[in-house]
Amino acid sequence: MNAPSTAQHLMPVVAQREVPQALLDALKAHFGDRCSTALVVREQHGRDESAYTTVPPPAAVVFAESTADVSQAVAMAAAHDVPVIPFGVGSSLEGHLLAVQGGISIDVGRMNKVLAINAEDLTVTVQPGVTRKQLNEEIKSTGLFFPIDPGADASIGGMSATRASGTNAVRYGTMRENVLGLEVVTASGEVIRTGTRARKSSAGYDLTRLMVGSEGTLGVITEVTLKLYPLPEAVSAATCSFPSIEAAVRTTIQIIQMGIPIARVELIDANAVRMVNNYSKLSLPEQPMLLMEFHGSPASVKEQAETVQEIAADHAGHAFEWATTPEERTRLWTARHNTYFAGIQSRPGCRAISTDTCVPISRLADCLLESVAEVDASGIPYFLVGHVGDGNFHFGYLIDPESEKERATAEELNHKLVARALALEGTCTGEHGIGLHKMDFLVAETGAGAVNMMRSIKHALDPKNIMNPGKVFLY
Amino acid sequence: MNAPSTAQHLMPVVAQREVPQALLDALKAHFGDRCSTALVVREQHGRDESAYTTVPPPAAVVFAESTADVSQAVAMAAAHDVPVIPFGVGSSLEGHLLAVQGGISIDVGRMNKVLAINAEDLTVTVQPGVTRKQLNEEIKSTGLFFPIDPGADASIGGMSATRASGTNAVRYGTMRENVLGLEVVTASGEVIRTGTRARKSSAGYDLTRLMVGSEGTLGVITEVTLKLYPLPEAVSAATCSFPSIEAAVRTTIQIIQMGIPIARVELIDANAVRMVNNYSKLSLPEQPMLLMEFHGSPASVKEQAETVQEIAADHAGHAFEWATTPEERTRLWTARHNTYFAGIQSRPGCRAISTDTCVPISRLADCLLESVAEVDASGIPYFLVGHVGDGNFHFGYLIDPESEKERATAEELNHKLVARALALEGTCTGEHGIGLHKMDFLVAETGAGAVNMMRSIKHALDPKNIMNPGKVFLY
Repeated sequence: MNAPSTAQHLMPVVAQREVPQALLDALKAHFGDRCSTALVVREQHGRDESAYTTVPPPAAVVFAESTADVSQAVAMAAAHDVPVIPFGVGSSLEGHLLAVQGGISIDVGRMNKVLAINAEDLTVTVQPGVTRKQLNEEIKSTGLFFPIDPGADASIGGMSATRASGTNAVRYGTMRENVLGLEVVTASGEVIRTGTRARKSSAGYDLTRLMVGSEGTLGVITEVTLKLYPLPEAVSAATCSFPSIEAAVRTTIQIIQMGIPIARVELIDANAVRMVNNYSKLSLPEQPMLLMEFHGSPASVKEQAETVQEIAADHAGHAFEWATTPEERTRLWTARHNTYFAGIQSRPGCRAISTDTCVPISRLADCLLESVAEVDASGIPYFLVGHVGDGNFHFGYLIDPESEKERATAEELNHKLVARALALEGTCTGEHGIGLHKMDFLVAETGAGAVNMMRSIKHALDPKNIMNPGKVFLY
Repeated sequence: MNAPSTAQHLMPVVAQREVPQALLDALKAHFGDRCSTALVVREQHGRDESAYTTVPPPAAVVFAESTADVSQAVAMAAAHDVPVIPFGVGSSLEGHLLAVQGGISIDVGRMNKVLAINAEDLTVTVQPGVTRKQLNEEIKSTGLFFPIDPGADASIGGMSATRASGTNAVRYGTMRENVLGLEVVTASGEVIRTGTRARKSSAGYDLTRLMVGSEGTLGVITEVTLKLYPLPEAVSAATCSFPSIEAAVRTTIQIIQMGIPIARVELIDANAVRMVNNYSKLSLPEQPMLLMEFHGSPASVKEQAETVQEIAADHAGHAFEWATTPEERTRLWTARHNTYFAGIQSRPGCRAISTDTCVPISRLADCLLESVAEVDASGIPYFLVGHVGDGNFHFGYLIDPESEKERATAEELNHKLVARALALEGTCTGEHGIGLHKMDFLVAETGAGAVNMMRSIKHALDPKNIMNPGKVFLY
């Protein structure tokens, strides 16, 4: 992830703010060796999976081990008007972790305890540094699972902050639907709680949902209460190949419109299948493919699968392959999750620029097919994967980072794609967030009025603009 | 609904703000006969289904027919620092519609058009005055339905503003999960949009969720885009009687913990059954009862029903009665929805004070049974109904409005109930909202820090405090 930036020109330039030595001294005095100013540590916290790499790193990294640590670090930073940037595992794709205005990083990775498993209520309360895989490992014996799966083994705090989703969202929703409550350290260092463990509430403003997706700009999430789900009695996964992307997409649309409670329905285009075959040593047919999963009682899974097979057959779907053992399923989903790396490996030295549009399901074919034609015509190598049941898909444009021309072409393709998605009543980002890269798209999507309302909220809750400044919109 | 107030003493007293004649003249000049100052019209808009009736009515009522009308009325009121109170159908239970600080009412009842049905995307866009029954009538031919059912034929705008839910929430969620986007008139009269028709998005702060449940205090909702669901292929409803409330509750807990996708599971206590029998001329066994509904394919409905019958039998559930025709189901659900009126009728001259706590499902038995014992000991007549699958239930304390003693007893019972629910990690309001009655409970539930954060947002978005002031918290 250390190749030169490909999107530097899109990043709004704002002056770095000074981090006074007095603050660094105070942090060192308070946190001891849990505050690091070593360059290698700072650099590791000054980048993420985005294409931005030339931003100077934060001036220090505080390794928080408790809410009190976070509160203390924020309060000290606030006293010096210094930005704070929360850090989970660093898997953001949109530059969320970069110290574009300077400041300090607060790494919550050591806050990785599962605090309370309430199996009988289908809830769990965790610290923000718990990762989704760790969580599922720790709750395994309860017969429950946490379905949100953005691919990366992201932290729950980071997933909350970006309103993440992924392959299971079509059935189980996104972080928006699955966070019940939060503990948050505000811009003054105060600790507040939002929500309860009740499954619904009409008690005042929905601060939980305001914080979910606020990308660290309104507070640092220090505790998350999540919904869990019973592990389905039966699970079955299948792959099905199609003669065209259109056939796969039309199959998906019909599955959704019929209300089939499919748990996962992922599109993988022929390019991506080829890359995945090479990377994961598989021999999937090199055609557009749907990768599906069904959850339920044995009878319900069978019924869903039969209906879906009929729909797929109507669209010339063939080569249906079932994976019913956990091992087979893991192999398939691991291959799916490695698409990004398979793509990168397919073109030595390249970088991927990932798109993230999401449109109403009826507009999916229009949006996708026009965009595929456009990128095919451009000559840029790419792969295409999608959480198509939600209308969400990602192109990975595989560009030579040394080529200004390819970079410009990719950005132009992305702009056209976003414009198309917005015209089709969709969004510029289904799950990755705005970060540094999509501020203009946010205004185009929601209008200046709504962005100004967001800005007013930010001004009210963070009057010194120290909470992850320079992300989502400029202050 | 014109009996004297039973909860007057709980209402925070704030001075009425002046409505200058200049504003009334301007409204009359602009809106003509769509602005009324007739006492009967004002009085009709100055009350709701809550126990508050002694608040002076608003100074005028504007009947808005468009977003432009709402915007104009708000802008004119803002110019004079005069409060505006949005009005849908008046079914609030918490005093949301009362002009406690004076001002004008904006009735959006004439904004009752279904603007766009996108059946293939399972979305619909409506004006705020559309009621839930009207909506389901208008989309009937699409094979889709809107499940949120708070009992009353409430307006979609009002349901959004109070984050309503009801009998189907256990399966389909609440307004929180089912509003995709909004058009809102802000405190300055500006029109903004939140959300898109995409099913998920990570584009900036979740203003949609901030507005849903804000009880008119941050803006007037002028358009709502909702999720719809395919009408289930098969629907089956059943009643089952139990020897005790505990047995019915333990059955419910097990249904939920097993992850059975039950569409509705309502508790009706023996008192309520008796009242319903009298009111609706039914002959249900006068024992605690669960009223359930199952949605799905015929096979899945059969499977769910069989499993639930087994669970119920384990808890001595008996007298299982099926209602599979639409007519039988309508009769049952109408009886359920009339519980409130059946209760009122059971004690001539009485008024009902409704509670609304919601707790994690594992705490439901503790919360409910202790509270039942308490109210039984108090001697106050009551009924008990509950969306128990969500952990949400309502006592209706049937008090003599002339009796200070009964009123005080009922309030004390409610306070004890809320304290118990909060101690059990629940909420003071599952679906009715804070309004005038629960401001202290809100602070107890969420803490002063969170309420202050809400207040900061209110100050930022409504600096003149004109949007339904005096509700949720004091400015």
